[in-house]
Amino acid sequence: MATVKLIEPENAKGRVKEIFEDITKTRGGDKVNNIWKALANDPDLLDATWNRIKQVMAPGALDSVTKELIYIAVSVVNGCEYCVHSHTAVARKKGMTEEMRSELLSVIAMASQTNALANAYQIEVDDSFKK
Amino acid sequence: MATVKLIEPENAKGRVKEIFEDITKTRGGDKVNNIWKALANDPDLLDATWNRIKQVMAPGALDSVTKELIYIAVSVVNGCEYCVHSHTAVARKKGMTEEMRSELLSVIAMASQTNALANAYQIEVDDSFKK
Amino acid sequence: MATVKLIEPENAKGRVKEIFEDITKTRGGDKVNNIWKALANDPDLLDATWNRIKQVMAPGALDSVTKELIYIAVSVVNGCEYCVHSHTAVARKKGMTEEMRSELLSVIAMASQTNALANAYQIEVDDSFKK
Amino acid sequence: MATVKLIEPENAKGRVKEIFEDITKTRGGDKVNNIWKALANDPDLLDATWNRIKQVMAPGALDSVTKELIYIAVSVVNGCEYCVHSHTAVARKKGMTEEMRSELLSVIAMASQTNALANAYQIEVDDSFKK
Amino acid sequence: MATVKLIEPENAKGRVKEIFEDITKTRGGDKVNNIWKALANDPDLLDATWNRIKQVMAPGALDSVTKELIYIAVSVVNGCEYCVHSHTAVARKKGMTEEMRSELLSVIAMASQTNALANAYQIEVDDSFKK
Amino acid sequence: MATVKLIEPENAKGRVKEIFEDITKTRGGDKVNNIWKALANDPDLLDATWNRIKQVMAPGALDSVTKELIYIAVSVVNGCEYCVHSHTAVARKKGMTEEMRSELLSVIAMASQTNALANAYQIEVDDSFKK
Repeated sequence: MATVKLIEPENAKGRVKEIFEDITKTRGGDKVNNIWKALANDPDLLDATWNRIKQVMAPGALDSVTKELIYIAVSVVNGCEYCVHSHTAVARKKGMTEEMRSELLSVIAMASQTNALANAYQIEVDDSFKK
Repeated sequence: MATVKLIEPENAKGRVKEIFEDITKTRGGDKVNNIWKALANDPDLLDATWNRIKQVMAPGALDSVTKELIYIAVSVVNGCEYCVHSHTAVARKKGMTEEMRSELLSVIAMASQTNALANAYQIEVDDSFKK
Repeated sequence: MATVKLIEPENAKGRVKEIFEDITKTRGGDKVNNIWKALANDPDLLDATWNRIKQVMAPGALDSVTKELIYIAVSVVNGCEYCVHSHTAVARKKGMTEEMRSELLSVIAMASQTNALANAYQIEVDDSFKK
Repeated sequence: MATVKLIEPENAKGRVKEIFEDITKTRGGDKVNNIWKALANDPDLLDATWNRIKQVMAPGALDSVTKELIYIAVSVVNGCEYCVHSHTAVARKKGMTEEMRSELLSVIAMASQTNALANAYQIEVDDSFKK
Repeated sequence: MATVKLIEPENAKGRVKEIFEDITKTRGGDKVNNIWKALANDPDLLDATWNRIKQVMAPGALDSVTKELIYIAVSVVNGCEYCVHSHTAVARKKGMTEEMRSELLSVIAMASQTNALANAYQIEVDDSFKK
Repeated sequence: MATVKLIEPENAKGRVKEIFEDITKTRGGDKVNNIWKALANDPDLLDATWNRIKQVMAPGALDSVTKELIYIAVSVVNGCEYCVHSHTAVARKKGMTEEMRSELLSVIAMASQTNALANAYQIEVDDSFKK
């Protein structure tokens, strides 16, 4: 059903194989997910995506769960079924409670609504918001 | 430039006037922003939006800053200029540091990218993500 | 500021000139708007767009105002500043009252919100909705 | 397949049970749909969404069918599969004929096209459109 | 599962039948795809869409494969599952290699990312970009 | 007007200064554009974005102009004003003719339209499109 053939870990070679092993190791023994098997069709894109995501999602000024919540919000608005499912699962694993998930959804719903209203009104940005 | 006339606080009456006063009070004396002046053309919509946003954005399982970060993420993806400006300003006021803002943007950029890739690949959701 | 040069009616020739005259005539003497001056850079695209829009927006099973309301709704969600302004102006001219505009915006805001929620929940379509 | 467990009417309690009963009553005996069973995980969000949608979708300056057409338009542009199915079914039930559905789709297609063109041209809003 | 009944070629009559035959002839004997069977519910829309797409997708200043790549890019961003599948299949048939597909996806991912960043920064357009 | 302060080349230091010099060199002496001055607030994000974009946009199986056309298409659909302006300017510099631009826009308009229709019909993917 995907538009490319998925590359299974047992068929991975060279750089792809190394990245698959790094994914499994970094994610505490988890299986390699379908997105990586698809990306493996283009080792450069797989490499660039995996190495950047590992860096971006590591805890920093924001903790891991907060980063996952933001990831889910973006994925919901972009209508990405795969990403909503995968990042909801990851967020739960990293500690997102049902209360946090409920509040996340309420904020997403609220923002979607006021975004539409502001676009409809075409209101100008208040001077006080400008740096 | 807006598609409706903005209702200034000095011209507000009845329910609109009360809500404007509640906005100013809740936001620690801040001026009423343009979005509320636009919404005031429809007191029911103003009332529903303000009372729901007050409830949704109050700290709960997620703190106020985290909620603002999610709000910004949604607004960026929806391309809402007004909302990006207003919620970036509010988030800073509530304590978003430049490090947090940088990480927020990196996550938004990362998610936007993998959302597009997953949509292009049309990959199926892994069984392990399904509840 | 536009990415193409606008072609003014006084410089229009041949097929472009004819279409500009048809636009003015059809719209009761109104000036030719910027979108048509931009499209005039590609007479085929101008022709295809104008002749189709004239057909599509003519009253039929839906009246003209209802069609404009739908046009505004699509333009708001697509974040098209130009189209929100132009179709709000046209809708008012065709009879959209402020009450209708308020209800239009309330429906757009409501739908934007439940769209986001349904995408977040990834709920399956009820059997009863399938034909 | 949903990212939350659906709460069936027979397991609903307290406020959720009351809202489910109001949904069934308001919709002339219809079953409670999946979106409400998902929202029931968060009684506040269920309550806010249901009570606002009941108010917004009631006939006013716009009739019920027109409101459903606008709802479908927003849902199509946001790519919400669930909402397209559910509101197409509801619109038919409320009186949307196949002629109306055809015209709705023609307007959505037309607007999607000119939205893209206006965004590509980045044309400025005509002075005549500004209030 | 579709929101309309698909009209099969054996049941097509009049103008729909003629267009179905033109589709088959133009596409070298291919079967009529589902999108056309859905559009056949509205012969005007079928006619307008088919005749315009035939004109737009014919090789000109851009070759057929390049046009399909652009079509895929738009469909990915709009999250149109059907269109991503159909145009990926058509692009391959017209000569899109796996290397081209990989580079297409890398550009789409890159653009999605910088689009989000530019929207988040709300940076002004450089004077040097204005004509 | 931007949500961050732009970092001018004369104030750039260390890694940011090096990347700014690489941008100028790679782009044949061009000034550093606003997007890079904004990204310079986060040297990691600047580095990741610049080095990846340099790699992705280099000619390969697709030439530079084709890659810019795809970039414009994505930016139009995402409604990114800055990116539409900047990549239209770059595409012209790299050889996009007005005929190519016209055909690009016709394809974007066509795809936007059928994307909306396919989302409205919720048609199933033809078996023949599946690999």
